[in-house]
Amino acid sequence: MSGKYKIGIIGAGRIGRLHTENISRMVPSVEIIGIADVNMNEETRLWAESLNIPLATGDAMDLIGNPDIKAVVICSSTSTHADFIIAAARAGKHIFCEKPIDLSVQKGLEAIKVAKEAGVKLQLGFNRRFDHNFQHIRELGRTGQVGDIQIVKITSRDPAPPSAAYVAVSGGIFLDMMIHDFDMARFQAGSEITEVYATGAVLVDPEIGKAGDIDTAIVTLKFANGAIGVIDNSRQAVYGYDQRVEVFGSKGSAQCENDTANSVTLATVDGVKGEKPLHFFLERYKDAYIGEITSFVEAILKDTAVEVGGEDGFEDMVAALAAGKSLKEHRPVTIKEMKKELGV
Amino acid sequence: MSGKYKIGIIGAGRIGRLHTENISRMVPSVEIIGIADVNMNEETRLWAESLNIPLATGDAMDLIGNPDIKAVVICSSTSTHADFIIAAARAGKHIFCEKPIDLSVQKGLEAIKVAKEAGVKLQLGFNRRFDHNFQHIRELGRTGQVGDIQIVKITSRDPAPPSAAYVAVSGGIFLDMMIHDFDMARFQAGSEITEVYATGAVLVDPEIGKAGDIDTAIVTLKFANGAIGVIDNSRQAVYGYDQRVEVFGSKGSAQCENDTANSVTLATVDGVKGEKPLHFFLERYKDAYIGEITSFVEAILKDTAVEVGGEDGFEDMVAALAAGKSLKEHRPVTIKEMKKELGV
Amino acid sequence: MSGKYKIGIIGAGRIGRLHTENISRMVPSVEIIGIADVNMNEETRLWAESLNIPLATGDAMDLIGNPDIKAVVICSSTSTHADFIIAAARAGKHIFCEKPIDLSVQKGLEAIKVAKEAGVKLQLGFNRRFDHNFQHIRELGRTGQVGDIQIVKITSRDPAPPSAAYVAVSGGIFLDMMIHDFDMARFQAGSEITEVYATGAVLVDPEIGKAGDIDTAIVTLKFANGAIGVIDNSRQAVYGYDQRVEVFGSKGSAQCENDTANSVTLATVDGVKGEKPLHFFLERYKDAYIGEITSFVEAILKDTAVEVGGEDGFEDMVAALAAGKSLKEHRPVTIKEMKKELGV
Amino acid sequence: MSGKYKIGIIGAGRIGRLHTENISRMVPSVEIIGIADVNMNEETRLWAESLNIPLATGDAMDLIGNPDIKAVVICSSTSTHADFIIAAARAGKHIFCEKPIDLSVQKGLEAIKVAKEAGVKLQLGFNRRFDHNFQHIRELGRTGQVGDIQIVKITSRDPAPPSAAYVAVSGGIFLDMMIHDFDMARFQAGSEITEVYATGAVLVDPEIGKAGDIDTAIVTLKFANGAIGVIDNSRQAVYGYDQRVEVFGSKGSAQCENDTANSVTLATVDGVKGEKPLHFFLERYKDAYIGEITSFVEAILKDTAVEVGGEDGFEDMVAALAAGKSLKEHRPVTIKEMKKELGV
Repeated sequence: MSGKYKIGIIGAGRIGRLHTENISRMVPSVEIIGIADVNMNEETRLWAESLNIPLATGDAMDLIGNPDIKAVVICSSTSTHADFIIAAARAGKHIFCEKPIDLSVQKGLEAIKVAKEAGVKLQLGFNRRFDHNFQHIRELGRTGQVGDIQIVKITSRDPAPPSAAYVAVSGGIFLDMMIHDFDMARFQAGSEITEVYATGAVLVDPEIGKAGDIDTAIVTLKFANGAIGVIDNSRQAVYGYDQRVEVFGSKGSAQCENDTANSVTLATVDGVKGEKPLHFFLERYKDAYIGEITSFVEAILKDTAVEVGGEDGFEDMVAALAAGKSLKEHRPVTIKEMKKELGV
Repeated sequence: MSGKYKIGIIGAGRIGRLHTENISRMVPSVEIIGIADVNMNEETRLWAESLNIPLATGDAMDLIGNPDIKAVVICSSTSTHADFIIAAARAGKHIFCEKPIDLSVQKGLEAIKVAKEAGVKLQLGFNRRFDHNFQHIRELGRTGQVGDIQIVKITSRDPAPPSAAYVAVSGGIFLDMMIHDFDMARFQAGSEITEVYATGAVLVDPEIGKAGDIDTAIVTLKFANGAIGVIDNSRQAVYGYDQRVEVFGSKGSAQCENDTANSVTLATVDGVKGEKPLHFFLERYKDAYIGEITSFVEAILKDTAVEVGGEDGFEDMVAALAAGKSLKEHRPVTIKEMKKELGV
Repeated sequence: MSGKYKIGIIGAGRIGRLHTENISRMVPSVEIIGIADVNMNEETRLWAESLNIPLATGDAMDLIGNPDIKAVVICSSTSTHADFIIAAARAGKHIFCEKPIDLSVQKGLEAIKVAKEAGVKLQLGFNRRFDHNFQHIRELGRTGQVGDIQIVKITSRDPAPPSAAYVAVSGGIFLDMMIHDFDMARFQAGSEITEVYATGAVLVDPEIGKAGDIDTAIVTLKFANGAIGVIDNSRQAVYGYDQRVEVFGSKGSAQCENDTANSVTLATVDGVKGEKPLHFFLERYKDAYIGEITSFVEAILKDTAVEVGGEDGFEDMVAALAAGKSLKEHRPVTIKEMKKELGV
Repeated sequence: MSGKYKIGIIGAGRIGRLHTENISRMVPSVEIIGIADVNMNEETRLWAESLNIPLATGDAMDLIGNPDIKAVVICSSTSTHADFIIAAARAGKHIFCEKPIDLSVQKGLEAIKVAKEAGVKLQLGFNRRFDHNFQHIRELGRTGQVGDIQIVKITSRDPAPPSAAYVAVSGGIFLDMMIHDFDMARFQAGSEITEVYATGAVLVDPEIGKAGDIDTAIVTLKFANGAIGVIDNSRQAVYGYDQRVEVFGSKGSAQCENDTANSVTLATVDGVKGEKPLHFFLERYKDAYIGEITSFVEAILKDTAVEVGGEDGFEDMVAALAAGKSLKEHRPVTIKEMKKELGV
């Protein structure tokens, strides 16, 4: 029996498989000894087998109850996150859970509380914090190379809109899409958001409007440390996944470009042409997905704090809810007010 | 006597001299036959002489009353703009006037009205519209190459803050600094601003705060065509004058970089280093200052509409006032509401 | 027993381990069932075990003689390449061999001939052909987007010089370093080199000069299709591994930048600073190493020609020898003359 | 009478007019009081009048013999350069002369000698030394920021080939086009060229080949300080005037990009597109033409050495002749050998 750290995966959908394959290939100190999926079938079993994962089950409790398993990676549907966190925490497992913890803030808070009481680590899947560009910008901010941070600007645009059907159950642009950017804003500012003001429009797809959502948004932020910020989102940047961050401060400004497949430019009579941004999150954040899992494992093995914990997910969600309230009521909304309304 | 188009210059301060020298050197179809400055002195006389300008006077009316002079360029202090516009218009002169027309919207409107009734051209000094980068972005927008415009983003940061004394009489960041960006936003959107929401902070210089102003601001915008936008301003970007624009639409996104003195990069063990942005407006907009005057002369000679007229200056000023009100009242303010309050 | 394609690795040094780990992680259709190293020891055995490789042996013939093994990857020392190629070819194994085949062209040719007669595939480790940038430039050339190729320019500089001791046995800069660039030049030109002229100097390390070699070189090239080219090499670019290619033709020019760890720039009072190129080949060509092995496996499984075969290695080596002769005799040297001299 | 420095212009063709207008507009310390052109006509007279130049004559000696004129700018046809230099020098005038001094090296040398003996300044029109990018690279080299210079690389490609008729009398690609690059190479290396080796081809226009010239060339260089270099020329870069320089040394590498009309990029589904290089020398070196004249005037007024003197033009020409000899004889040619052959 190998001396590797043994874990289980809950959920064998797209992200579950991504994490599973990343861990199998890239995290040699870890061994996946079981995978659970509520829709376990032959295809999934064969896939697990090809990765030398001995157990493939339809019941996540087979993993949570397994004493050999020290940690679980939860990639099942959102509605199950909080329950699995609570069960795993009570069983003493460390937990990596895809965001969000729950569509209900209260239930999310309960899960966070249980994990805390159980003394297990809880990391959320805010993968962008592990991106090479954003990490380097944060490092420049953290080490004082941009001075006092004054403005945080985030551009975050998807290449193509989701279906209106998806939008209808997504929780809306702030919870479904901009939540990543609220997290990035807090990460880069090194400070909590205190107030938001949201402007939005339906400019991409009228069906999104009919579903009660918007597809284009600009949200301004105030942070506890005095900095201000702005995030812009669009559900459709036809040129690809546009993911840029700028942190401006008293000593300078750090910013990044989009990642591209290559740096080749072709100069012709028509101009000088280069590559578009990488299409979407699986390409753009390929290494960040590996990074977050590696970081989680390191936090366990070295017993350090996780890079992005349950409280982060909670704060991100409150910011998203406040943005929704701001848009609806057409006024700035403080985080304090929002928390009070939520009773949290 | 030459067949050149004869004009006079009112005001021989920094901008007045800049326009005078640009016209003398770069606009061969025009001859400056007089310059007026309320503080006319020997040094200014010699300077005028060196440029072969026959008349140097302390009284602007010497130019406005001169039948040979067909147009005037007003670069005197702001408080005199409206009066000179009115006098020149009544004398049938075409007018180029530095912005703003007046610190009072009502008085500005009157000047605009008089110029209109007199049938003379009135162009305002929003030089940035003539910048090579911003003009090209507008061209891409105007010709449909970015599709329907959805988001306009403007970064506009000065290299160093003005003195608190200046700030105290400047009209505040929105009227003194961001007014250029409101004009740029309207130019790029190809549409009027309908609503603004301002967030601000004092992060650069506490003295600016004591003078009742802010030094860092983010303003979100709604446009009549449905697009949304955002402007960020800082009174101090230590790396230089940061002037960037992005126009995002249904077919793509156009953006520019800052201008630099050269494109050289030096790769060493410490990294790859390039030039900072050009320091400030005289360097950055050197060609734009020539462009706006050239455009004004062309509009006269070809009898076409000026590129940026009195109405533009009026709309820009209302947006700036609305931003101030938004900041003060901590809520979004519509242009309609602001105009109603101003009685215009 | 799995249905995977079974292979063996010969040589467990740096490159051997790199290929082994890449195949284990990234090429799921292949299974490494044995690894041989003339200095097999406990550490290597444990490493092989950790990758689930059942056999670790000191004798490459244990792999070459194993009927389950269908292909071998030769990463042993250069002096053994030709012999292992010949043995493996006679045993009917497909062969991936690190460059060069041999320091003797004649022996290299013999190995190529044996592999050809045996009907096995022989791919050489010219990994740069699989780089994302260089592949895209080649694609633009191949598809006619740069028109008729007229000039090929290659910049290729190492971050730090090897020891003089290494240099003494390396075969010299042309065989040890520029051979990659001769291969790249032929790849990008889509044509064979017909003549070379070499200029060189000792500017980095006098010890390299004492060892009879140079450390800085510029070689001009003529190609069979009429194009001309130039390669510059330095043993020491203090800012990192400088690897750039430009292909210029009748319709335009394609070029690339160096890869960097991230695209972040920091603007301060001192200028705008970005990342240096990735340090050296293991970082820079990480994906290219995976790409070449993947391509080799695909060529076997689909029974297509390998991307870079024995003949390529032969032509590259003749070009390198001709460059050495050119430098020594201070005159241009044709490939035809060089081959004649070599009797090949 | 003004206290300005009085000069005369010889030659009112394209470059003569360019210098005349630049001086009139941009060099306030200088007054042009006469212009001579062998084909003086009404149109030229009117143009001179519009610039307030009192004298327009068909005879250059009217200027050279005028005691008020302290310096002349020679922009007449090449065959007249040496004679005008000699006459002007003997008359005690400082001289700015377009390159080359003469198609005969011997006659050029004589002119240089006469100017030297007369104690007048002689500057040649190697405008590129005054380009913002190349000057900054030189500054980085001169101040030791790239360390010991080891490699100088120059890319220099015209947007479109001249007519075969022009080519026939041009002196060939090395004297007509690459001479600028030999000058740039010497400037950047801070050292004299000692040897050249030329490779060339006819790839752009067969008519150029029929005229006995080539249209594509790569020349390698050795410098007296030990550095090596390479220049590539093409008569046709369809994407515009390609003018780049790289200086590589022991501490790093300095390089520049082409100048463009603006920095705007448009990202669409088709990629990210930017501007081509500025089309040709009048646009690309607009400021460099002003810079060289300004520098000439400063050298006179401050009595300092000119930035690029007759000896530079002589060395550049010898390098060009040596490259021609190298191409013809298919071997490297030293400058020493070339000078010996020329008897200089």
